[in-house]
Amino acid sequence: MEFLVHIEIDWPPDAPEERKAEIFARELEQGQRLAAAGRLRRLWRVPGRWANWSLYEVADATELHESLSSLPLYPWMDIEVHALAEHPNDPRALGIDPDAP
Amino acid sequence: MEFLVHIEIDWPPDAPEERKAEIFARELEQGQRLAAAGRLRRLWRVPGRWANWSLYEVADATELHESLSSLPLYPWMDIEVHALAEHPNDPRALGIDPDAP
Amino acid sequence: MEFLVHIEIDWPPDAPEERKAEIFARELEQGQRLAAAGRLRRLWRVPGRWANWSLYEVADATELHESLSSLPLYPWMDIEVHALAEHPNDPRALGIDPDAP
Amino acid sequence: MEFLVHIEIDWPPDAPEERKAEIFARELEQGQRLAAAGRLRRLWRVPGRWANWSLYEVADATELHESLSSLPLYPWMDIEVHALAEHPNDPRALGIDPDAP
Amino acid sequence: MEFLVHIEIDWPPDAPEERKAEIFARELEQGQRLAAAGRLRRLWRVPGRWANWSLYEVADATELHESLSSLPLYPWMDIEVHALAEHPNDPRALGIDPDAP
Amino acid sequence: MEFLVHIEIDWPPDAPEERKAEIFARELEQGQRLAAAGRLRRLWRVPGRWANWSLYEVADATELHESLSSLPLYPWMDIEVHALAEHPNDPRALGIDPDAP
Amino acid sequence: MEFLVHIEIDWPPDAPEERKAEIFARELEQGQRLAAAGRLRRLWRVPGRWANWSLYEVADATELHESLSSLPLYPWMDIEVHALAEHPNDPRALGIDPDAP
Amino acid sequence: MEFLVHIEIDWPPDAPEERKAEIFARELEQGQRLAAAGRLRRLWRVPGRWANWSLYEVADATELHESLSSLPLYPWMDIEVHALAEHPNDPRALGIDPDAP
Amino acid sequence: MEFLVHIEIDWPPDAPEERKAEIFARELEQGQRLAAAGRLRRLWRVPGRWANWSLYEVADATELHESLSSLPLYPWMDIEVHALAEHPNDPRALGIDPDAP
Amino acid sequence: MEFLVHIEIDWPPDAPEERKAEIFARELEQGQRLAAAGRLRRLWRVPGRWANWSLYEVADATELHESLSSLPLYPWMDIEVHALAEHPNDPRALGIDPDAP
Repeated sequence: MEFLVHIEIDWPPDAPEERKAEIFARELEQGQRLAAAGRLRRLWRVPGRWANWSLYEVADATELHESLSSLPLYPWMDIEVHALAEHPNDPRALGIDPDAP
Repeated sequence: MEFLVHIEIDWPPDAPEERKAEIFARELEQGQRLAAAGRLRRLWRVPGRWANWSLYEVADATELHESLSSLPLYPWMDIEVHALAEHPNDPRALGIDPDAP
Repeated sequence: MEFLVHIEIDWPPDAPEERKAEIFARELEQGQRLAAAGRLRRLWRVPGRWANWSLYEVADATELHESLSSLPLYPWMDIEVHALAEHPNDPRALGIDPDAP
Repeated sequence: MEFLVHIEIDWPPDAPEERKAEIFARELEQGQRLAAAGRLRRLWRVPGRWANWSLYEVADATELHESLSSLPLYPWMDIEVHALAEHPNDPRALGIDPDAP
Repeated sequence: MEFLVHIEIDWPPDAPEERKAEIFARELEQGQRLAAAGRLRRLWRVPGRWANWSLYEVADATELHESLSSLPLYPWMDIEVHALAEHPNDPRALGIDPDAP
Repeated sequence: MEFLVHIEIDWPPDAPEERKAEIFARELEQGQRLAAAGRLRRLWRVPGRWANWSLYEVADATELHESLSSLPLYPWMDIEVHALAEHPNDPRALGIDPDAP
Repeated sequence: MEFLVHIEIDWPPDAPEERKAEIFARELEQGQRLAAAGRLRRLWRVPGRWANWSLYEVADATELHESLSSLPLYPWMDIEVHALAEHPNDPRALGIDPDAP
Repeated sequence: MEFLVHIEIDWPPDAPEERKAEIFARELEQGQRLAAAGRLRRLWRVPGRWANWSLYEVADATELHESLSSLPLYPWMDIEVHALAEHPNDPRALGIDPDAP
Repeated sequence: MEFLVHIEIDWPPDAPEERKAEIFARELEQGQRLAAAGRLRRLWRVPGRWANWSLYEVADATELHESLSSLPLYPWMDIEVHALAEHPNDPRALGIDPDAP
Repeated sequence: MEFLVHIEIDWPPDAPEERKAEIFARELEQGQRLAAAGRLRRLWRVPGRWANWSLYEVADATELHESLSSLPLYPWMDIEVHALAEHPNDPRALGIDPDAP
């Protein structure tokens, strides 16, 4: 099952730089682990904000919660999840892939 | 450049069925044309609503508007677009593809 | 997987009574079919509104959409779904049942 | 009388871990006491947030307030309650129980 | 149990006057019946709107729904109910009645 | 003239208990003075929140402001006032009092 | 007592011009009557909308409602009223009048 | 050109009293200077809040910003401005002045 | 003085095409007249909506209202205006023009 | 591609003046660098707020994010971006320039 996830990160502006660099690095690592596990599929930056949109593929909402709450920045995150149902006209379901050779 | 697009379709509940079937069919066709052109990448149903989320890849907002306003149901659509910037941790950019053999 | 579903029914106030009675009866039947199938678990009236809260247990959002769009009043419905993750302290999971003999 | 209750917990991200563990444990205990008393019936996690939906069965709003304000995390909680009226098509009222043998 | 109820009446501006006068008269009657039954306690006009605030005393949300849906204008009404818990400092509970001789 | 008043109290969760008890006691006293003066007529607790609804009878908005800003917790209060006009069907105006002997 | 009043007029775009001209003329007349009576003090156009802000001086909310509901366009109006309390620094109260000779 | 201005003052509840008294006094002085300059025309208190509505007459938005940002409490202010266009039925424009002898 | 203006056009989806073409043409003409008069400076399409952002330079809000209400589509328009003050760092004010030879 | 950008700066009211002056100066410099690079085209002050509207011309949302996150005040900024599509009636596209000699 797929979810679209919107995350705002409410990080105090004058927190020490090293603290931010350290946690940010661990955040990248954990994100890549979730990607390798096939849960985190795509990740985009919301222009102008410390916020992102991401596409998750998980068994259900419980597995989604496990994934999201495993992120080091989770305690500073304001997260909205959008459950997605399959659409009959989804290019992926129809096998339409313009990049295909 | 990619956009996430949220579309609500405000179709009058007691409009004649054939009218709906006819326009819905043309909508599917046009959607598949946009997919084949590489603009419409993914399409999901919002559970419980005649609404959907979609991922577009286009040159810019002008090309996005051309694509969206070409949809037969466009006059009944309430559309919000979310411009997306690239994220350093995007699995696609990092080449992390769990489905890869 | 469980969902909480909030439904507002936007029925034209001066629609003919029989039309309302006929469709309302089919709505009850379909609701009971969904209950018998184990999908619709609980249903409550929002006091003062032609609206309700319901608890669904389904495989995923796609099955939820099938269930909701099968309701006769679906075209007049404004539906919000809330995906639910399991909670470690859920009385049902902990087997706490005050009604148990 | 039943209520659906939505609770957001606004816990400071950098509060000491032990403080969180200690109060969280007392929270679980008090939740189980309310469940044993037949007031707290179901409890679900909102995926991605330190928030939950719960179903309460109480005499009235005054008893609901007593129950909610007895929770250790109450001072950090932002709570919305939804009063529920009985619905003629509620599976529980109609005795429709798909799990029944 | 008491509820504060906010009602907006969405009456089409150019509906025939007699229709309005007729239904408005039945509305007053039914309101007075609910008052005599001790359910409708107070009723105020929201200045500038065809809307009102009212105070109800009922057994629970189900009885509240019965009362509200018995109003002739119910199909044109947009209703929000606010469940009320008792407050230790409520003048009525403390027997403070400045009008008392 | 009557006003419905909605008050949210934004009290820091980890403020010292005695400070809260002391100011809460002064709050009750001042509330009872306003009741005795015939200004504060009714007071209800919003279930689940440190918030309340109250009914005030005052000369005008200036006197209402004097009353509200005299409350010890005023600096921590977020207050919305709703001006009320008389309604022709108000049970109190019609002398309908179901409790009357 | 003074009120700031915000009015949006929801007039059907394709209603016949004469109907609009006729009712608009009666609206102006009634507005001037309310001004002569000292109730309507100032009136401003919201740029870009068929909407306006106005300043009323009335005995209370009941008299305000009488005034507003006397306007011919009242059935097409969406009105928000803001009750105003006196401010110690109000130029009018302090007698500061820069236009004074 | 006239503007209606809504100002909320977000002053920390437990800031020292003298600090508040000192800045509040300077605020009154600056307000009276703006009134004497003919910019600040009227000022009302929002009942129940440390907030106010005011009427400004200035050359344009730039002069309005100079005036507002000159207020000592400006850094604690949350300000919304409403640009006002002249209305053909404005009592001031029509010379209707009920107070005139 | 400059204003940013956001316009949504609420045109009935199934209105006859010629009616739309006719009024749309007059809209373009009037827009070009406002541009030639130096009032309408820039105009952008909101992607996915029959809506636009525009930059106006006018004497004040009254002249802005005259301009906007002169547009043929005005009765179908939902308009929000944003008054703009000069900014010390505005490239135009600083004479920074990257296109300059 | 053009974007309209709305920025609110959430600067703590009682931060030391020199800190503010220092960062504000660096903010002006960086703004002028973005203007010289042809990215920042126009900048306006929102009257009454430490907020601004700006017009950016960039390759895409990724370049927009680079520009915005390069601003010294970025960590204190709450930014909304509006993607803009070209409009057939844009005075700049039509070469209508009332200032032209």
